[in-house]
This record gives sequence, C-alpha cells and structure tokens, in this order.
Amino acid sequence: MRDIVEIGIGREARRTYSLNDIGLVPVRRTRSSKDVDTTWHFDAYTFDIPFLSHPTDSLASPEFVQAMADNGGLAVINAEGLWGRHADLDATIAQVVQHSKDNGPEATVGLLQQLHAAPLDVDLLTERIREVRAGDATVAVRVSPQHARDLAPVLVKAGAEIIVIQGTIISAEHVETGGEPLNLKEFIGTLDVPVIAGGVSDYHTALHLMRTGAAGVIVGGGSNTNDMAVGIHTPMASAIADVAAARRDYLDETGGRYVHIIADSDELVLSGNVARAMACGADAVMLGTPLAYAAEAAAPGWFWPSVTAHPRFPRGVVQQVSLGEELGESDVVPLQTLLHGPSTSCYGTENFVGGLRRAMAKCGYSDLKRFQKVELMVRNSPF
Amino acid sequence: MRDIVEIGIGREARRTYSLNDIGLVPVRRTRSSKDVDTTWHFDAYTFDIPFLSHPTDSLASPEFVQAMADNGGLAVINAEGLWGRHADLDATIAQVVQHSKDNGPEATVGLLQQLHAAPLDVDLLTERIREVRAGDATVAVRVSPQHARDLAPVLVKAGAEIIVIQGTIISAEHVETGGEPLNLKEFIGTLDVPVIAGGVSDYHTALHLMRTGAAGVIVGGGSNTNDMAVGIHTPMASAIADVAAARRDYLDETGGRYVHIIADSDELVLSGNVARAMACGADAVMLGTPLAYAAEAAAPGWFWPSVTAHPRFPRGVVQQVSLGEELGESDVVPLQTLLHGPSTSCYGTENFVGGLRRAMAKCGYSDLKRFQKVELMVRNSPF
Amino acid sequence: MRDIVEIGIGREARRTYSLNDIGLVPVRRTRSSKDVDTTWHFDAYTFDIPFLSHPTDSLASPEFVQAMADNGGLAVINAEGLWGRHADLDATIAQVVQHSKDNGPEATVGLLQQLHAAPLDVDLLTERIREVRAGDATVAVRVSPQHARDLAPVLVKAGAEIIVIQGTIISAEHVETGGEPLNLKEFIGTLDVPVIAGGVSDYHTALHLMRTGAAGVIVGGGSNTNDMAVGIHTPMASAIADVAAARRDYLDETGGRYVHIIADSDELVLSGNVARAMACGADAVMLGTPLAYAAEAAAPGWFWPSVTAHPRFPRGVVQQVSLGEELGESDVVPLQTLLHGPSTSCYGTENFVGGLRRAMAKCGYSDLKRFQKVELMVRNSPF
Amino acid sequence: MRDIVEIGIGREARRTYSLNDIGLVPVRRTRSSKDVDTTWHFDAYTFDIPFLSHPTDSLASPEFVQAMADNGGLAVINAEGLWGRHADLDATIAQVVQHSKDNGPEATVGLLQQLHAAPLDVDLLTERIREVRAGDATVAVRVSPQHARDLAPVLVKAGAEIIVIQGTIISAEHVETGGEPLNLKEFIGTLDVPVIAGGVSDYHTALHLMRTGAAGVIVGGGSNTNDMAVGIHTPMASAIADVAAARRDYLDETGGRYVHIIADSDELVLSGNVARAMACGADAVMLGTPLAYAAEAAAPGWFWPSVTAHPRFPRGVVQQVSLGEELGESDVVPLQTLLHGPSTSCYGTENFVGGLRRAMAKCGYSDLKRFQKVELMVRNSPF
Repeated sequence: MRDIVEIGIGREARRTYSLNDIGLVPVRRTRSSKDVDTTWHFDAYTFDIPFLSHPTDSLASPEFVQAMADNGGLAVINAEGLWGRHADLDATIAQVVQHSKDNGPEATVGLLQQLHAAPLDVDLLTERIREVRAGDATVAVRVSPQHARDLAPVLVKAGAEIIVIQGTIISAEHVETGGEPLNLKEFIGTLDVPVIAGGVSDYHTALHLMRTGAAGVIVGGGSNTNDMAVGIHTPMASAIADVAAARRDYLDETGGRYVHIIADSDELVLSGNVARAMACGADAVMLGTPLAYAAEAAAPGWFWPSVTAHPRFPRGVVQQVSLGEELGESDVVPLQTLLHGPSTSCYGTENFVGGLRRAMAKCGYSDLKRFQKVELMVRNSPF
Repeated sequence: MRDIVEIGIGREARRTYSLNDIGLVPVRRTRSSKDVDTTWHFDAYTFDIPFLSHPTDSLASPEFVQAMADNGGLAVINAEGLWGRHADLDATIAQVVQHSKDNGPEATVGLLQQLHAAPLDVDLLTERIREVRAGDATVAVRVSPQHARDLAPVLVKAGAEIIVIQGTIISAEHVETGGEPLNLKEFIGTLDVPVIAGGVSDYHTALHLMRTGAAGVIVGGGSNTNDMAVGIHTPMASAIADVAAARRDYLDETGGRYVHIIADSDELVLSGNVARAMACGADAVMLGTPLAYAAEAAAPGWFWPSVTAHPRFPRGVVQQVSLGEELGESDVVPLQTLLHGPSTSCYGTENFVGGLRRAMAKCGYSDLKRFQKVELMVRNSPF
Repeated sequence: MRDIVEIGIGREARRTYSLNDIGLVPVRRTRSSKDVDTTWHFDAYTFDIPFLSHPTDSLASPEFVQAMADNGGLAVINAEGLWGRHADLDATIAQVVQHSKDNGPEATVGLLQQLHAAPLDVDLLTERIREVRAGDATVAVRVSPQHARDLAPVLVKAGAEIIVIQGTIISAEHVETGGEPLNLKEFIGTLDVPVIAGGVSDYHTALHLMRTGAAGVIVGGGSNTNDMAVGIHTPMASAIADVAAARRDYLDETGGRYVHIIADSDELVLSGNVARAMACGADAVMLGTPLAYAAEAAAPGWFWPSVTAHPRFPRGVVQQVSLGEELGESDVVPLQTLLHGPSTSCYGTENFVGGLRRAMAKCGYSDLKRFQKVELMVRNSPF
Repeated sequence: MRDIVEIGIGREARRTYSLNDIGLVPVRRTRSSKDVDTTWHFDAYTFDIPFLSHPTDSLASPEFVQAMADNGGLAVINAEGLWGRHADLDATIAQVVQHSKDNGPEATVGLLQQLHAAPLDVDLLTERIREVRAGDATVAVRVSPQHARDLAPVLVKAGAEIIVIQGTIISAEHVETGGEPLNLKEFIGTLDVPVIAGGVSDYHTALHLMRTGAAGVIVGGGSNTNDMAVGIHTPMASAIADVAAARRDYLDETGGRYVHIIADSDELVLSGNVARAMACGADAVMLGTPLAYAAEAAAPGWFWPSVTAHPRFPRGVVQQVSLGEELGESDVVPLQTLLHGPSTSCYGTENFVGGLRRAMAKCGYSDLKRFQKVELMVRNSPF
C-alpha cells in the first residue's frame, strides 16, 4: 500500500525510506558465502565485484584506478577535476590535504574552488587518460552534464571506455534559456561507448533517462549536504526501488533492454548498506568515503566528493575520514583488505565484498539478480 | 488522507510535519538556476528576493535596513525594542552583547528585560524611522497586538510603509476582560498602509485573519522555546500548508483577493528549509538567526528574537550564533554573501538565494508561485 | 481510530503517546492570560493553582509545605521517608546531599536505603505532622499501599487532611499469598478524609480505583527507571486520556461523582508539558524535579523520588538538578519565582503557572475544565 | 493488522519492533513479587530462573559455570573457543584483556583471531568439560553449525548434557557446494541429549528448525554489528513473537510438542527488556554483556561475543563493560547480586530476576507461561 500522508490540508507527500530504515530477512536455506557469485556484467565488460569508485580526485590516482581493476572493480576518473588542470597532480593533492589539516575541512573548500578555477588543459587530461589506458584497467571517466557535449568526444578519443555523465540531479532534457538544451538521447547516440548517467531519484526521471539510451543510471544525489542546502533529499531504499520499477517497465516497453542501476550515496558507508542497496534493486554501488581508507587512494585518509569544488554553491567538504578519534597510519589499509578482507573490524567498514557475500549466503541467494528479491523489513525505530 | 490518531480513548490528534520531515522531489525537466525568477510582489512593492528579516534589534540597525534593501529584500524594524528607548543605540546593543559574553546567554535575558522597561520615547523612535525613510529602503515596522492601536498611527506618520502586527500567537479578535478587544478588522481598515499580521498556525485563525484585511499573514510562532514553555508547537510544513488552504478558500470567497504567507520560524535556519517552506505554500520567509552572521547586522554574530524581552515570560535567549566551535571574525560575512553567495560553505548557511534558485531549477520551476506545487516526500527517519 | 499494530504474528500492541509527542493547537480567539482561572477545587479544599509536590523528603521540609500553601498549591509529605525515622531531619538530609556530592548519584542510593532501614517512630512522625498542621497549610500525607492499613489512621489522627496512597503501580485489590489483600474499597470507606490513590496507567485499573471511593487518582509511575528495570512504561498523554475516559464512564455510572486526575511523571519537567497534561484531561499535576530548584525545598538543588529508598529494587537516584553545567547558588530561586515568575528563563523551567496561563489564554480558554478539550496535534518527529 | 509498507514502487516490507519499542501494560490485580514463580522446565532439567549465559570465553570459566548453577541458571560453554586451544586458559584470557587495555577494543580482535587459529585439542577440551561435570552444574556446550557433526558426539561423550548449535543465522538445512549439507533433522536424531539451535528470526526458519527435533530454538543474531556489516537485523519483539507463532503452529501440528524459545540479543541489557522478551513469548533469555559484571566471570568487567573470533569477518569487539565513566573494582559484583539483588542500582542492570518478578507481579501474573499474554503497548517515540 503506497504510504501517502497529508502533511497539511490538501497537500500530500509520500513516505520514503533510507537504507538505514530497512533490513534483510533470511527466510530460506542458508548457503556458504564461498558459493556466492558477485560478478557484474555491464555492457561488454565483466567485473568480479559490483563496486565502482566515486569520481573524485581524492580517490582516483592512476595507481588507484589500477588497484580497483586488480581487485575486480571499476574506478571512475573525474574529467573536470584536477587531472587536467595541474601538471603536478601529487603536489596539488598534497596541498589540499595540508590546507585542510591546517585550516579545517570547511575552510579548504575555498582552496578547492581556486584550484578548479585553473583552466582545463585538454592535452594534459588526454595524456593522463592514455597512461591509464596503457594498463589493463577499464577506463571510466565522469563529465558533468554542462560539459558533456564538449568533453565526452575528447575523452573517448583519449581512451575512455565508459562515459559517466553525473550531476547531483539530472534529467533527460535540461532546459536553459538562450542556450541549446542538452538532449541526452541525441547526445548519447553520437557516442560509441556505453554511458552511465545520473543522479536520479524518481521513477519518471529514471524512465526518461533510460529512454535516452543510457546503459546505466545512477541513483542518488551524492552529498547529503544537498538536503541542507537545496532541500532535496534522496532516501536510497525508496529511490532505488522506484528506479528498479522504471527498469522493469522499460524492459517491458523495449522487449528486453536491461538498464543497470548504480547507487551513489552517503548512505553507502557500511557493507550492510551495500547489501541493502542491492536488495532494493541496485546492480552495483559507487563507493566514496569508504574507499578513502585505501592506501592506494590519491589522498589516503581524506575525502571530498566532486561537487565540493562548485564555484558558487559547493556541497561536501575536504575531510579526514576516521574510524576512531584520530586517523593514524594504521587506519589506512590496502584496497584489497577494504574490499576482500580478511577484516579485523566488525562494523562493516572493511571486507565490503565479504559482507555482501555473507548477506546473500545467509539469505540463501547465490547470484545478485535473484538477491534483489530478498525479503525486507522496516525497523520501527531509527538505526 | 488526513492522519488522525487516537492518543488515548476518545482523544484524537492530527499528525503534523516540520520542514525537516519533508523533502522536494525533482520529477520534471531540470533548468538552469540562472533562469529562475525569485521576485516577490507584495502590495505596491516589488522585492527581488522573498526574504524579510525578523524584527529584532540584534539585526535591524539603520545600516542593516539599507543593506537588506540593497540586496533585494526587506528588513523589519521592531517599534517596541530599543530604538525608541535608548538614545545611544549602538552602546546599548554593545552592552547586551558584552553582558552575554561575560554572563552567558540566559543571564542576559534579565538585562534585556531591564533595558525594555525604559519608557518608549515616541519622538526618538519617530526620528529614527524618518532617518531610515530618507534612504531608498522600504520601511517596515513591527508592533505587538497589545500596542498596535496606539503605536501604528504614529509609525505611519513617521514614515512606515508596511506595518507588521506580530505576537507569538495572534487571533483576529483578542478577548480581554475590562479592556476593549483589539478588533483587527476595524483597526486595519483605519490604516493607509498594508498590514502583515501573525503568527498563526492553523486554518481557521488564518482565515479569520485574512478576513480582517491583512495583506499578509505570518505563519509560525517565532522561538521554539514556546513549545517547552507553553506547550504550543508549530511544525512548519503542516502549518504553512494549512494556511495555504485558507488562502485558497479566501481567494475563492473574495473572488480573487490574494493574501501573502510569510513563514517565520526557528526551522528556517538552512537554505534547504527555505526552499521547503516555499514548496509548502509560503510566498516569503522571515529569517532570524541566519542573518546574524551579516557584518551589517546591529550585533554581528549575536541574535535574540523580539520575545526575549518579555517582562514576565521571556522566550529565546541572547546568544552568540556559531557555525563552528567559536565564532571568529571570519564567520561574519557581508549580507550579500549570506544571501547571494558565492558560498564556500556547503551546509546551507550561506547563499540562501542560490539555494532557493537551485531547488527551483533542479525541480524544473522558474517562478515561485508554481514552485508551491512541487512534489514532496516525507522521510521515514528524522533528519 | 485506535492505533493497534501487530508487532509479530498474532501479537498486538496499541501505539501510545508521551506529552513530548503532542502539542496544543490554538484555534479560538486568544485571551489575556490575566483573565484565566487556575483554581483547583478538590473535595472541600480549594487551591489557587493545580500543583502538588511529589512526596519526597528532598522537597517536603515543614518550611516547604508552608511555602507551597502560600503560593496556592499543595505539598505532600512522605510518611514513610525520613521524617519519622531520624530526630535530626536537617542533618540527615545534609548527609545524603554531601554523600552524593562526594560519591555520585548512584552510590548514594545505598545510603538512602540504610537511612530508611531505621525503624519508623510513629510518635516522632505524629509530632512533626502536628507542627505542620499548626500552620495554615492543608496537610497531605503519602503512604505506600503496603503500609496504608497501619499508618493511615495514625496519620489522620495526627492531623492529615488528605491521604495519598501511592506506589509505582497500584490496583484496587492487591493479591498476596498468605497475607490479607488490601481491599482499597473497604479501606477507604473507613477513613474520614479524602484519599488520592495511584499510580495507574490504564482505563480498567483506573475505573476499579475510582469505584473504591478514591477522590483522586494519580496517573503515572513515578520514575522513568521503571521502564528500564521492570519494562513498564507510561507514556503520559495516552495514560491521562485513558484515565479521563474512565472518569467519564464512572461519572455516568454514578450519576455525577467526579474523580480528580493528578499526573505524576518524569515527563512533567517543563511548563509546556504541564499544559499538555491538563489538555489530556488532568485536573492537577504533581511536580518533582522542577521544584528542587526552590530555595524552600528540604534539599535545595537536589532531588530523589520516594522509590529511591526501596530496600531491594530502588528506582531513581539522588541527583543534583541542574539547568546548566554546574548548579550554582543563583540557580536556586524562591518557590514563588518557580511557580509564578517573573521568569528570566525561556525554557519552561520557571513560572510554571504563567506557562499554564499563557497556554490557556493563547488557546482561548478561561478555565481548566474546558481547556481539557483544547485541540491537539501529534508531531511526526520527536521533540 | 499486519503493518506492510511499500518502501518503493512494488517493493514491500513489514514494519518490525525492537524490545525498546514496546512496554508492558498492567491491567490486572497486582500481586506480590514474592508470589511469582520463575521456574524454567527444559526437557528433563529444571532451573529456578530462566537465564542462560551467552557461550563466550569471557564469561564461562569453570567457576562461572558452577556459579550460574548455584544461582539457579545455566551457563553455556563455547566448545570452539579457547578452552580446547590453550593449556593455560587463565593466562590466555588475561592476555586478551591486557591487549585490549593497551590497544583498544577493536585492535584486540586481531589477537583473538590469532588465539583461535591454534588447533582445537579435543583431549584438552574433553578434560575440561569432565572437570565441570564433576560438579553439580548442568553442562551445556555450544558448537557452530559448521563443526556440529564432528564435535557434538565428542562433547556428549565428555559429559555435555545439553548441546547448543549456534551460529549468527542458521537454517534447518545448510547448502554448500562440494560439501555434504548439514541436515539438522538427521543429525539431531543421532544425539542422545536435548539440542538447542539458532539463531533464527523468522516464522518459517523457526518452524523448519522445530521440525528437526530441536528442544529449543534461539531467537536473535547475537551481535548488533551484524546489522552494520551484513545488513541483517533482528528486532527482537517482532522476531520472538513470530517464532512464538511458529511454536503454536508446531504444537498443533505435533499434537503437543512444546519447543522452547530462548532469546539472545544485544537488546537484552536491562532487566526491563528481559521482561519484555518473556512477554513476547520467550521461555528463557541468554545474557551476554550484563553478566560481564559478575566477579565469577572468566574476564570480570570484559566481554566479547563468540563471533568476535571469526577469522575473516569478525563481529563484536573485546570491550570493557562499564556502568559509568571508568569501570572500577566496585562495579564488579557477585553474580548473585546481578541476578537476585539486592540492588543499589536503579537502571535495570542489577537484580535481573527481581526485575522480572516485579514485572510479572505488577501485571498480575504468577507464572511465566501466562505472562506471555500480558498486554503490550508500542511507544510512539524511541526509548
């Protein structure tokens, strides 16, 4: 039963749920977690694990991109970040981290804005992407909707194999007075590589986006500061389930075209929530903060989402991630430990794949697609 | 479906929602935030942005009134505050701030009560209002329901162009044994300037208030300490929507008289909540605490609502506002930054107009009136 | 609509509400708080304000009993506390406070248990009650259900004008193997003075208690530690409304016998909650912690409920009450300020009568009985 | 009415309740807590109190097993913990505690994993169990589902009188590729002693487990870190009630076979929650953290659940339990005080049996089975 409430006379709203609101209910024969298959088939690509990294310079160094591939996942590079703006990338990242250490997470937003005001050097960006392509990692690159038309063809030429068009909120057709609207359908048709687009949070926008020819849609609005600053919030359990309903209808409408759902949200900080996201209908998840603990990350122990650099209306901060009081060296672990364990932590912040495997096994499922039908509960009290 | 619960045998109550309980859902084509129109037409006046300041001496210095106008908004002066009671206004404000620094926010309530016990010098007040009127700012002045009859005519004569009759809770006809009740309908009819009256929180009181001839009604009870001290609480999402329903019915009843809804509440501390208030039906918002960060405010970095000075039953305190641990000089910014950005903060405490513009644009609306129909959700777990 | 939920297959529970869950909704013409009548008529007694004090030695010194009367209310003396067990009452109270200062609130429970293990000296108790009776205060004394039969006649003889039979939970007929059950109906019939009995929390127990001839019933279980230790919790909004329903039915059944409802709960710490309790159907409230700030209290600034001294299963602790970090001398105020103001505090912890008066006035009611019908709301998010 | 919500289009979930969400409602004649019978009859065994200890090395030393028996309850030994792996058990426990003191609760998980990597010496384990059996305590031993087939016969031979097969989540038939599944029905039939198996959290799995011939089923998943790490959460009020429904149906199906329900959960930390668990349908509870305050525990003042030692995916940590800031010697009390009082604490952390007795007595019940029908409420706001 749809849960519609009247918030005031004649004004209705639907009640929506976050991943923390729900839980998995094991009602079938349990399995061994060793017998579980987590393979993610996306377009012509196959990944051992359904994990992408959020497209931020704080994660995606060339080393990190390769490490994600080595561990079976997919790193996403931010084409509009620092890679194409500063020749000495390591020094620039180090400068950001040092500034945050000295001045705090919020004060560093200004520096990030400055560093992103430097012009985008397409040749520099191209060269860096080519270097990554020289390895065996699949190359995925993110552009904003605003610059997709200009940048995407350049990126594909440079070697990008998957294009991610990602803004905090996106629609199939963006309207702008005096400018030509970005018609995603036409645009995606001109590209030779599969496109993932988002974020979206509702059935209709998702359906329209699927009709543009996107191979995948991102559910979720990135940073939760969007809620405080813009009033738009995306409780992920409801959003993923809604978009999964759009996928079912689109599958029916097209007689079999399956669009992948990728969840990207601040809610995805624990392995338990990754399992819950898949249970709601996600095919893969995009991790941000959790991967900042990887020794291979560009800024190990630090994180900022890509929207932090917005020139007039930033969201997110440059912050040191921490499992305890003060992040010590020992809190940074190899990416392999973060993803595959073994874990010495019990709070769902390490061995993300192990957590997902156990969730599937305990609930009696051996593949991800069927696991999307696992029984769910809603908890009466908050997490 | 109206959500009525039985709290005990035979005793019912309606479930109500705060702005933090709800969120906007973008389901239309996105727009550019540059194409959004935030103009607020009120009576014969036009304001670029739908923002008023709460009528408190901690905000409204003469400089601040002009700065609000320069930034497209409207400052409201408190006729019953310190302006008409103390010749050296700056020194008096400084005394309050210093007392709070030395003795804490609650202890300073007593000093404020004392300073308000000084007699109101109508000539002094008149002169100060005339000075403000000499600039190009629209002059709005607030009186309490108790003193409206005596003071409002004086204020209009002094140059007030908009009269705001504001108590924590108001009704169209106040009953007082042995005194003549204030019949707002008769009273408003005697004034030549538009009147804004409030606060109200329910459909019936709002409808009665609209029938008095008020051009605008204020929704909300000011300080949230009303909840603790009197047991009356006004969750703003429900209250604004209820009053908007009264406005629709009054519009129909009068064949077209549109009464403006102005939201004034402690809930309005983030730009996301401003957007949510407009989405529920508000035409404009009255900001208090958020504007205390303005360098042009009378007491930059400090805030007290007007009810703090009540002689026997104060609500609110004299407090230093703070974004972080300790408010430093750098936390105080020009009013222009607070309202129009660019922001280096991501938490919705700067660039309020930018936040509202983005909310409208992401949801696909270009004007405020249509934005009142944006799709809403209720979150299952608290903010 | 009764809100019954199925917590598990075949197991139902009713959803219940605390005072913090609800709020008053002003929908009538506002009044002046000066025109409000708070008189409480109980049996042959008339009190200016509907406030009793919780029967604890930390409040009821002889001076405090007189001060409550001077301020229009009623103090209740605990017959089974320290008054009848220790000749030097002041020194004993001082010893408890000092022990808590030195050893902490929980550690002092043991001392309190020891001090209550001293035998009850009926002559000492009688003398002390007689001294109080010599003043003009109405004398109300509390006994436990266990000792009511033995003690109540003695107390009446000593001068008690109202007997309060109070346990954490009480029923009209207590069953005990090998002992004679306390049949309240028979027992109350033998007493010449009005009896208040409780606590109760449900319709049926309350109805049975009313049928015993009690002039008043107490709703609420005293300390909230009952919830943690015994699993029994009494959300006061629901409990008071349920008992008010029993009162209506009993009134009908008897053709007009009106039983008073007195609320006693940890929820009653702010004047706003006193107003909410009355709105749910209470005729009077019993205050505990809030009165500990009174300079006239036996242990100014300290509080323990009467159940703290239970020999094997204490509930509540001996704690210093505090409005801020550390209770200073200045936090202790005359009882008159606590009850009648003027207040310099805005959080509902002073001027309790003023808060109630304003609640009634803002909602448009001039007497307490009609105020029990004020419109209510339930807030979606916790207080 | 079953409470099913639609979390997103076409995706439903049931609303479920924790013990903190509910409360007991006393609606009958009160009784004396002395007249209450808490006897638990399980198979051929009779226990004065329905309390078991969680099978962890931090509790079950040989002395503790005897102390539990002396106090009327039942300790459970963990066959796969340190007892059979390290000759000097006391020194090993001391090493764990010291490591946690020096390095913190999470860092010690690694040491625990190492200590459990030592091979299981069946002779050592056998000898230790024989020693315990030499006393008059009933000997209950826990094995994991993975090692039940190998270990259980050995344990029975060594003297185990009750076998507990416990994993975080269990099903009647575990599926494993390339290995023979553990068919509990066949396996339990081969054992001569009563078997308790779990944990389960839903009706169907519980019913299947009852059909295996288990004399008792454990409801609950042990550590709450399962929620964070795996996404599976077991709100105990709903889970116990669901399993109690399975018991009723199984009783009917078998014409009278009664299977015991034992609750084991992090929710069981206060005596009030023990009462609530029984009220939902539990016959007995398994306590973990609360018993760590016992002076007789293997590691007095410290606790870790048995799953903490999992080699790749630990849950739970090695932590110092604490009632206040810092656990001093005085916080550790005799087990008798923890279970039977007298208590000097009011928060439900001592005198667990007294709390249960009072809950039954106040609600008017004299035996545990009928108490399972006590009236319940759900609180609108969280605990």
